[in-house]
Order: sequence, then structure tokens, then C-alpha cells
Amino acid sequence: MSKVAFIGLGAMGMPMALNLLKTGHAVTGFDLRTEPMQALVAAGGSSTTSAAAAASEADVLMLMVVNAAQARAVLFDGGALEALPSGGVVLLTATCPPIEVAAIAAEVEAKGRRFVDAPVSGGTAGAKAGTLSMMVACSDALYAELLPVLEGVGGKLFHVGQEAGQGAAIKVVNQLLCGVHIAAAAEALALATKVGVDPALALEILGGSAASSWMLNDRGPRMLEAEPEVTSAIDIFVKDLGLVLEAGRGAKAALPLAATAHQFFLSTSGRGEGLADDSQVIRAYHLLNGN
Amino acid sequence: MSKVAFIGLGAMGMPMALNLLKTGHAVTGFDLRTEPMQALVAAGGSSTTSAAAAASEADVLMLMVVNAAQARAVLFDGGALEALPSGGVVLLTATCPPIEVAAIAAEVEAKGRRFVDAPVSGGTAGAKAGTLSMMVACSDALYAELLPVLEGVGGKLFHVGQEAGQGAAIKVVNQLLCGVHIAAAAEALALATKVGVDPALALEILGGSAASSWMLNDRGPRMLEAEPEVTSAIDIFVKDLGLVLEAGRGAKAALPLAATAHQFFLSTSGRGEGLADDSQVIRAYHLLNGN
Repeated sequence: MSKVAFIGLGAMGMPMALNLLKTGHAVTGFDLRTEPMQALVAAGGSSTTSAAAAASEADVLMLMVVNAAQARAVLFDGGALEALPSGGVVLLTATCPPIEVAAIAAEVEAKGRRFVDAPVSGGTAGAKAGTLSMMVACSDALYAELLPVLEGVGGKLFHVGQEAGQGAAIKVVNQLLCGVHIAAAAEALALATKVGVDPALALEILGGSAASSWMLNDRGPRMLEAEPEVTSAIDIFVKDLGLVLEAGRGAKAALPLAATAHQFFLSTSGRGEGLADDSQVIRAYHLLNGN
Repeated sequence: MSKVAFIGLGAMGMPMALNLLKTGHAVTGFDLRTEPMQALVAAGGSSTTSAAAAASEADVLMLMVVNAAQARAVLFDGGALEALPSGGVVLLTATCPPIEVAAIAAEVEAKGRRFVDAPVSGGTAGAKAGTLSMMVACSDALYAELLPVLEGVGGKLFHVGQEAGQGAAIKVVNQLLCGVHIAAAAEALALATKVGVDPALALEILGGSAASSWMLNDRGPRMLEAEPEVTSAIDIFVKDLGLVLEAGRGAKAALPLAATAHQFFLSTSGRGEGLADDSQVIRAYHLLNGN
């Protein structure tokens, strides 16, 4: 079992850290908010006053932060990489641009630490249930060494390559589909409303037909609520579809559906609703259609 | 058990007619091709020389044709409606515009026959397995009377309303999602190829993650083949997304994802590939991206 420094105890990170605790790892958490650190301690973990303090006694420094800029801030500006014992492993599970992940990995390795690119998919529900998909890129030896930690977090592990950035690349493709499927569900349910079909009935039928998607069944019911619980915010997809389009620009690939879907998340955020549940991208459609 | 005249023994109609036979109904089939009629006879059904001849001894005239124009041709120009005994039921399972369905229903009822709007979803796989979703709009009394026939065809029955066109409206919303999901899967797998991710590995991961859709799992594997078996043709979605956009125009609803997806099916058909499997919409993306 490993000593894990877990940075970023948000909607995804908190249940991931709790699962690591349950599977026997020692977890020291750090977050900018005190509340999740107290919850981690109550569950048997430890908390510290900084990411660097957490890293200083860890085998594995796990980063479930919002983006690559936060990962850099923690590792380089915040001193966590220097604090991590030599040979320690930086495990980056946040969704970041593949090129950025490769660059961070190079800087980590230049300082004598090791790096694992391991983004996850499955949302907060998957994080809680321990059924996340993990797309892991690192050497075979490091993968084997880290398997107990990876299994402590995820339900479905995929060793997708040896090079940092290969996990991030699959995650980008994953987010393309997730973002487009949420917007498509909104477009469909808004059309149902506009043509006089009961959207709840439509959702019941579509959710069990060839029209179904994981997102339709997960986000669809919340699209029918005016102020649903926030399980993942609009601004997360503003960011993630932004990463998708950035990867498309980098590779010179046309992504017209992803670009269109992005506009709806952007406009929802631009109306001041970026912290609403991402199902509320349907508001943009209702506004357009006068529903 | 009913005497059913079944018009249109194609990729969807043939297995639906066979399921009706298996559940004890008497089925007389008609199709412009002789081969499926021979197959129906071999399975215990009957065949005739025209749709009108099939209708003349039927309780239920079932139309699994390509579009509303074909339904009109069979019913009105081809004389099947006149041949159907008074009080007989026209059951339209083809995907048609809601406004057209309502208009056909009015003409059928003016001639003393009854009408059921009952489009289906689930593809050829669902048709074979008897697991189609049926979106049925008709009076409560007629629904109850026809239940044995409906159950002989579909696995999931939804009585969605009393008025002809209400089933078609839900089917339009269904097809919006189906068409967008196929194009989104193509966009995602083409991006994977472009950024150097193995698309088969990406498909394995995405198919079990929050990125999954029924279409990704059904069409995705065929997107990785150059000349896959045709289970549903590109031109079907040229038509069906056309119906979606027509419904959007009628209701003055903006459907940007459906409109974008339609362009890819159109361009694939425009290159002479309209009869290819609809998974091959990915060719348009590969062409665009120089894959």
C-alpha cells in the first residue's frame, strides 16, 4: 500500500481520495477549502497546510485539479515537486491538453521524479462508486508498480501507451463525445418541448432506444428540472470542449459538432450561469426557441 | 390473432413480419422484390401480386415503407386503402413527417378505415430480436384492440398520445439523437486517428465510459472497417435528418447540431456512397482531415 498525497478534493477528487482510503492506502489531502480536508480526516485520512507538505512524505503525488495551469502551480510554483522524495511518482488525473501533459512530464522527469498521465472518465457518480475509467500512459514497469493505487481509484483501467500525453489524447476524444452528447440531448429535449411532445415521456422512450447515450440518461432528467443539483458545472465543459478544439487545432482536424456544442456552453456561461449544472445548457436552446 | 397485410419487406420490415408470424398472426406480404416474398412464404406466410391484393383480406394493413410518399403511393394510388375492408386499420410504422402522418390519417379516416401512427426505433438488430421501441399514437380503444399485433412486432410499447402525428413527432426527436450520435462517433474516431490514438482502443474505452452511446457501440466497430456490412444506409439518415430539420423549420426551432450532422450524411451521399452503411459517414471526416 502507498502513501498518497492527494491534491484537489473537489466533486471528483474527494470520492477518489475516499476510495483510496478504503482500499488501504494512507492518504494525506490538500485543498484550498478546509471543509473537504475535515471530511477526509473524519474518514481516516490526514490533512496538511500545503500541497508541498503533503508531498514531502508521499510515494505518490496525485493531482485532481481543474486544469494544467493548476497542476503547474501546485508542482512548480507551490514547491510540491521539490518536496516529493526523489523517485516519487506524480500522477496527473486532471483533464489537460496532451501537449501540456507531455511538457509537464518532461519537467517532472528532469527533476528525478516519475510521471503518470492518467485522466479519468465517469463523473462524480463513477468516482463515488469506484467505477471510473482510467486512461493510463506510462512505462510497463511503472504501471505494474502503481497498479494498487490505480485500482484503488478506478474500476476500469486501460494502459493506453508508454508516453505521457497518450492518456490525455484519449480523454480529449472522450470529452468530445461527452460534450456533444449533452448538447445533443438538450437540442432534442428542447425540440420535443417546442413541438408539443412531453419531454419526460420523450426521455423515457429515447433513453431506452437507439437514441440513448450515457449522457442522455444521466443529464436528461436534470434538464427537465429548473434548478437541479450541480454534479458537474457548465464551466467544466467550457474548458473541456475548449481542450478538444485546441487538440483539433493542433492536429489540424475539423470538429464541427464539437465546435457547435461549445458555443452553447460558452453562451450559457456568458449569461452568468457557468456554475450551474451542465444539464442547464438546455437553457440556451429554450432561449433560442422561445420555450 | 389478426390477418395482417405487410407492405415493405426490407431490412426492417422482413424481420418485423417474421416476428408477427412467430406470434401467431396470419401475414400476407408484399414487396417490389420477389426474394423477400419467397422468404416470407418459406417461413409460413403468404405473398400476393400487389399491396391492394394483400389488403383485401386483412384486418390490419401495415406499412413499413421508406417514406410518406411511398405510404401515399401504396394507400391511395395503389388502391390498398380501397381494398382494405371497411373498419380495417392502417398501421404506419415508417418514419414520416408528423404533419404528413396527420394528413394521411385524415384521408384514411375519411374513407371509413382507422389509422395508427406507430413508428419504431431499434434498427435491424432490434427488429430481428423483437425488441423494437414503438411510439404508438391512436385512441385508447384502438390501442387495446391492436395490442396483440403491436406486441407481435415490438419489445417496448409506448402509447404516446391519441392523435396521429404524435408518434411521428417523438420519432423525429429520436432520429435527431441517432443521427447526431453517429456523426459525433465519426468525428471522435476520426480525431483519434488524426492525433495518433489507436481508434480500436479508443472505441473500447469510450464505449464503456460516460462518452458512450447506443450508436457509438453499434456503429463504431463498423466505422473501423473499410467496407462493412450495410445494416442501414447513409441515405436513410439523409432522409431522417431531413425530416428532423423539416420539423424544426415547421416549429421554428434551431437545431444546429442536427443541421451540421446532416451535412456529413449529405456529402457522403453526394460522393455516390448513399447506399453504404451509415457508419461510413466517417469517410467524410477522414477526407476532410486528410487521414
